[in-house]
Amino acid sequence: MNDETDKGMSCDWIPGGEPEGTATAISGDAPGNRSVIYPFAGDFTWAGVPQERYKAEDGTWAAIARTVLIGARGESALFDLRYFEIAPGGHSSLEKHEHEHVVICIRGRGTLLIDGTLAELNFLDTAYLAPNDPHQLCNPFDEPFGFFCIVNHHRDRPRPPDEKELRALLSGAAARGIRP
Amino acid sequence: MNDETDKGMSCDWIPGGEPEGTATAISGDAPGNRSVIYPFAGDFTWAGVPQERYKAEDGTWAAIARTVLIGARGESALFDLRYFEIAPGGHSSLEKHEHEHVVICIRGRGTLLIDGTLAELNFLDTAYLAPNDPHQLCNPFDEPFGFFCIVNHHRDRPRPPDEKELRALLSGAAARGIRP
Repeated sequence: MNDETDKGMSCDWIPGGEPEGTATAISGDAPGNRSVIYPFAGDFTWAGVPQERYKAEDGTWAAIARTVLIGARGESALFDLRYFEIAPGGHSSLEKHEHEHVVICIRGRGTLLIDGTLAELNFLDTAYLAPNDPHQLCNPFDEPFGFFCIVNHHRDRPRPPDEKELRALLSGAAARGIRP
Repeated sequence: MNDETDKGMSCDWIPGGEPEGTATAISGDAPGNRSVIYPFAGDFTWAGVPQERYKAEDGTWAAIARTVLIGARGESALFDLRYFEIAPGGHSSLEKHEHEHVVICIRGRGTLLIDGTLAELNFLDTAYLAPNDPHQLCNPFDEPFGFFCIVNHHRDRPRPPDEKELRALLSGAAARGIRP
């Protein structure tokens, strides 16, 4: 088993892949630091934006997919906009980092474990995840759970919670929502 | 007539107002730099987040409203997340600035004039507005046009296009979409 299967995917994978479809470049050639419109394709993909699909080791379901809408093509903004989609049964790693997350649910529903609290996220529910609060996003439901995640462009790497944090999490009321 | 009626509202008003409803503070008391969930109230407001409504001088319609979801309550992220809603017939100022915009349509539809191109924005269409590209958002339709707008937290003040830019815009194919 590899880390992806064991722990779910981190919320901070390295971008990759090539764009599919066609964006509307406004000035000059996209990609780059130029105005551009990415039309929504109706299936939670965007024309001109690559989607990275990951599969669990057994290959029977896509645990999670990432789409970097803004931040991977030379934009000068200080933030990145990503769309993540977690398949039924999937989850992200339980982790923490210095950088903040802003999470906006736009498809289905899921759970957010944040610093010992377990909450359900539904359409357009918006969460601010403060620095160093351990967190995990899960999809225990039957439909895909999709959300925007906004982060600083320059950010630290995620780390697992330390022993004390993990003990506190596992002894708390939200422990039932944690995925190993 | 005042500037609001003449030119529409800038996309960078100064935050104000008081929260309504109840957010789910995860650690300590919100507001502040703490993890928090703002549940969507179903009517394009969020529990615990104030909404600023502006009315045109004649008072017959709300031209535009702003909700600062992230960035006005002590968060340390380098970006702000705002929700704007433009009533039918309303529009923002035609302006430019050094800082970037990321715009995501989440309610109804509207038009985006960006650097001489006029495009319709529909659900989840996402736009990147590069530095100093003159732009304007309009709602020529019959329903409210609502969109997220993400910006750097520290940013310059909007300015009108200069004469050369304005001439170029008015002589272009997109001129029909410009509101005075």
